[in-house]
Amino acid sequence: MTTTPSTTALANFIWGEERLKRRCDILAAISSNPVFTQSPNSHALSRKDLWTLRLKQGVELLELKFKLGWSNQQFVDATKIAGDILSLGVNFRIFIRNLEAQMSPEQKAYWIPRAERFEISGCYAQTELGHGSNVRGIETTATFDPKTDEIVVNSPTLSSHKYWIGSLGIVATHALVIARLIVQGKDLGNHVFLVQVRDLDTHELMPNVKIYEQGEKGMSTFASMDNGVMAFTDCRIPRTNMLAGMVSLDPDGTYHAAKNTKHAYTSMVIIRGLMSEELGIEVAKAVIIALKYAEFRRQFNPKDGLERRVVEYASVQNRLFPALARAVAMMLLGREMRARIDNIINESLEDLHLQTVGAKIWASEHGVRDVEIARLSCGGHGNMASTGLGSLYAQLSPSRTYEGETYVLSQQIGNAVVKHWKNTSEQSISALSYLARLRDARRMSQKSQVAGSDDWFSPPVQEDFLEHRAAVLARRHLGDAARGKDTSYDVFELTMAHADLTYWRGLQAQVKQSAQHDRETMEALANVFALNAMVEGLAAFAGEEYLSAEHVASLRLAYQHAISGFATHARALVEAFGFTEYELNSVFARSGQTPYEGLLDVAKQSELTDNVFVRPTLLRARSLWKKYGRAKI
Amino acid sequence: MTTTPSTTALANFIWGEERLKRRCDILAAISSNPVFTQSPNSHALSRKDLWTLRLKQGVELLELKFKLGWSNQQFVDATKIAGDILSLGVNFRIFIRNLEAQMSPEQKAYWIPRAERFEISGCYAQTELGHGSNVRGIETTATFDPKTDEIVVNSPTLSSHKYWIGSLGIVATHALVIARLIVQGKDLGNHVFLVQVRDLDTHELMPNVKIYEQGEKGMSTFASMDNGVMAFTDCRIPRTNMLAGMVSLDPDGTYHAAKNTKHAYTSMVIIRGLMSEELGIEVAKAVIIALKYAEFRRQFNPKDGLERRVVEYASVQNRLFPALARAVAMMLLGREMRARIDNIINESLEDLHLQTVGAKIWASEHGVRDVEIARLSCGGHGNMASTGLGSLYAQLSPSRTYEGETYVLSQQIGNAVVKHWKNTSEQSISALSYLARLRDARRMSQKSQVAGSDDWFSPPVQEDFLEHRAAVLARRHLGDAARGKDTSYDVFELTMAHADLTYWRGLQAQVKQSAQHDRETMEALANVFALNAMVEGLAAFAGEEYLSAEHVASLRLAYQHAISGFATHARALVEAFGFTEYELNSVFARSGQTPYEGLLDVAKQSELTDNVFVRPTLLRARSLWKKYGRAKI
Repeated sequence: MTTTPSTTALANFIWGEERLKRRCDILAAISSNPVFTQSPNSHALSRKDLWTLRLKQGVELLELKFKLGWSNQQFVDATKIAGDILSLGVNFRIFIRNLEAQMSPEQKAYWIPRAERFEISGCYAQTELGHGSNVRGIETTATFDPKTDEIVVNSPTLSSHKYWIGSLGIVATHALVIARLIVQGKDLGNHVFLVQVRDLDTHELMPNVKIYEQGEKGMSTFASMDNGVMAFTDCRIPRTNMLAGMVSLDPDGTYHAAKNTKHAYTSMVIIRGLMSEELGIEVAKAVIIALKYAEFRRQFNPKDGLERRVVEYASVQNRLFPALARAVAMMLLGREMRARIDNIINESLEDLHLQTVGAKIWASEHGVRDVEIARLSCGGHGNMASTGLGSLYAQLSPSRTYEGETYVLSQQIGNAVVKHWKNTSEQSISALSYLARLRDARRMSQKSQVAGSDDWFSPPVQEDFLEHRAAVLARRHLGDAARGKDTSYDVFELTMAHADLTYWRGLQAQVKQSAQHDRETMEALANVFALNAMVEGLAAFAGEEYLSAEHVASLRLAYQHAISGFATHARALVEAFGFTEYELNSVFARSGQTPYEGLLDVAKQSELTDNVFVRPTLLRARSLWKKYGRAKI
Repeated sequence: MTTTPSTTALANFIWGEERLKRRCDILAAISSNPVFTQSPNSHALSRKDLWTLRLKQGVELLELKFKLGWSNQQFVDATKIAGDILSLGVNFRIFIRNLEAQMSPEQKAYWIPRAERFEISGCYAQTELGHGSNVRGIETTATFDPKTDEIVVNSPTLSSHKYWIGSLGIVATHALVIARLIVQGKDLGNHVFLVQVRDLDTHELMPNVKIYEQGEKGMSTFASMDNGVMAFTDCRIPRTNMLAGMVSLDPDGTYHAAKNTKHAYTSMVIIRGLMSEELGIEVAKAVIIALKYAEFRRQFNPKDGLERRVVEYASVQNRLFPALARAVAMMLLGREMRARIDNIINESLEDLHLQTVGAKIWASEHGVRDVEIARLSCGGHGNMASTGLGSLYAQLSPSRTYEGETYVLSQQIGNAVVKHWKNTSEQSISALSYLARLRDARRMSQKSQVAGSDDWFSPPVQEDFLEHRAAVLARRHLGDAARGKDTSYDVFELTMAHADLTYWRGLQAQVKQSAQHDRETMEALANVFALNAMVEGLAAFAGEEYLSAEHVASLRLAYQHAISGFATHARALVEAFGFTEYELNSVFARSGQTPYEGLLDVAKQSELTDNVFVRPTLLRARSLWKKYGRAKI
């Protein structure tokens, strides 16, 4: 394990130059700072103590931001690299971004500098107890009172309590509240309002606002985030606190609707688009921790007195290698989506929307599963908190439900398939290429042309397979939809096939941009990625003519070769990721200590090893029997 | 939610009469005991405080055991029903059972009463840091010293430290230590030794033994278990402390080997065999918590002002209904295995071994996945600790690695397939029926005879399908093994198909034993179970002649009917499970409170809601900018 990140060409390729530069700067700033390096064992702390520790670390990062002139993105990156430090990032990651996107120039000039310097601290309050995915169901009202030129915010019901609002439970002074604007009795739908919720000098709640910290999350995850619950009772804000970048409300109640509705999409597109890259980094951490253990651990089949390295078994390689390939794909494709988002005015918004929806589902489903696989591939010892694998799983796990639940979101892919099929308009959406194939009966009844195992390494063969699979599932979906079936479950399989194709294409394009020196490694990775998706996607071919039994056998053989040939490339990729010991924070990845030495060290430091505090209880338990004269005991 | 369990015929059928009786007695004893009902919020506690709380509750259960004359099994049941109370159960669940199985009559007469009355408290020390699945690799040595008539126990290396030993970290006074017996320089392999590790009066460690509590487990699970690490340095025990039920060692060093090696198998057979039933109960809890939420929660598609109940969506039904069916199958088949184990002398040990191996893998893989599915089907709110879903996942998660890791264990199925194929001996093992099919080329090339969707509800059709699938995967495995492929990954799919068939057969037999009044419900459940396994098992049919595209379509249609017709039966089953509010311990399943009311209540009780303790830090953070004169801020 190193203390400084790798900066080779392959490292720059995987991380992207900008991100790698930020990462190096952040690690240099924190890696000798005792606030981060000498913190207590987080797994042993109570929620309250852990939250307090993370706040202290967050404030230290804030001071580093100001001192070193870090950008907001760099601060957000730092909260991730430094560990699970979540609350303060909300102001920079979500609040300011929404002010920039949705405020009028005058509003921006006043509010953004205050948020930038953390003089105020903001959050984004959309979700309600009763309204998650269905944003249109939001009940919070914001009624314009022309007499006072104010807007009166109310939570009319239990189900309209704002819920899951990050950083609201303790930290935030201001909230962007999504509420239905009511003007002269007319419901104008959801709008965004800036509401001050805490006093800037005392941090007391403002009148007419109730806030509770939400409580503990499952598996102890997101312990450092103070999600909040909030209700309003006739809470008055100035009319000018309605965000007026797209819409506006005059003092006389005249309402000016949005001319450009693009913005309604963009906020979600951005957040979902960024998830792929962020998830990829966490998955890579988990897989690399597991690989380090698998390189060390030996079990069964001794030769010359040494058992076989676990990493040499097919059961480990077949789990960790595809997961590593997917992690890289998530990062590369995520970065490409980020570039498209930054250039959003030149983009087909629907195409980008469908890509980010598919990527969000695909990356969160695979990402969570792959972190779990990494933990399981370490066997029993993977269950120790000190490996870091359990908390990585817990941290990623909710990504399948936040920012759009997997099955609800999948319907957007299904709906797009139906719409463009009916309108014969798939040529406008590059991701729906398989619909053109579906219109061509000749292509749908064709058999795969593969003759031997090596053919499966050919990109056109891979694309043909993945496109055929997506077409078969699209045909099924169109049939289901036509006969009125509730497709909300089955559409998931189509979505994953759709996204396999998107990721496959994106990865192929990225591989071509890698340096010549690293091309072989990246091509090997692309083959592991592709052949895994194909082998795992065979179910759609049951009953189809496309594949023969010989095809299936030769595909499995090709996949076996891709996996067994990947070991040296995997090592090169682990090098290029170049995670420091601080970043991995795992007993399986310590410098100067083997995993076994590390595990023993953890036990020696357990605060329960000194059990003097429970001895009276134990001695009492062992003499309890004397009180009871039963024959049995 | 009720406070007393359901005791209808269906309840008795699902739980089994004995278990239901024990459960009723336990709930009656604890449901008004403040040690259990007034305990603090476990999710907010530090590991040390949580451990101390659970110990106090465990001692209270011990006193109830003595007071009310509970059997060991009843005490173990109570530690589960009362919550996550693990440490004290080891003495009764594992230690005493091993004393009974492996001690000589004289040893039993002395030791078992002491353990029964908890005068001593035992644990089972097999796993080492470097040796989990490969028990033959165990390094701890037990060298006979004829001069003193003692056995000298040593941990020669770091990797021979005993590790993962439940109840050893704090509680145990005695350990059953698995070590290599060395007599006159000759290594006689693993044997079991009773070693006293703590003083009975002071609870201090015995000389020459080092023990550390192992530290926190990932996702905060098993927090109430004090797993321990242990090393020996010339630790001397009397020769008579070697367990002498099967083997013995004379004072002169003469060694008498075991005549009956059946016992070597039985301990693992028993533990794995019991897992299916225990897992089923936990899965049922999770699914029922999720069903209660899905009955309450509404989202999208409003009719008459009310959105649609989430439980009515295919995306929820297709996830929760098969999971409920599997949970029932795990309980019923687990109970059947328990009966076979109790009658072990009349059983084919290999057949029972293969069944328990398959069941252990199948039940842990499906069980963990189904608990996760239950949580995910509750959307974002499922991530709150107070739903109980996160801790159920965390608690079940390691079941895939303990008592035999899934992939390592799967090889035992693969090896049995190869052995019996070569020896044409499959008729001796009922679970390998599909090998006979594989020998019959005519049957392997046959097409399914299904004509219409209804045919899929016929048990012979279902069995034919599942057997064909297992045969296809066995053929693949035999081919892979013949060409020397490392099958350690691929054999997993065969194992699951093998176990699908075992569970399908067992469930069919069980359904026939249900009361006439409940037969329709149980048949509906068996169809959901079967058709789900078939739809999820289509991958094996890619490239095969067995299914046509029409078959796949009609199978999917049949499955859709099975699911959508199951809603009323699911409600009957939830009733029959009859979990009390105390057992479910979930904010989604409280009497007199809706899930939303419960979630708000949890927030009101969060100890972080009163944030006075961090206000100075927050105020400092919001004025930090004044120290830094950058133009930017």
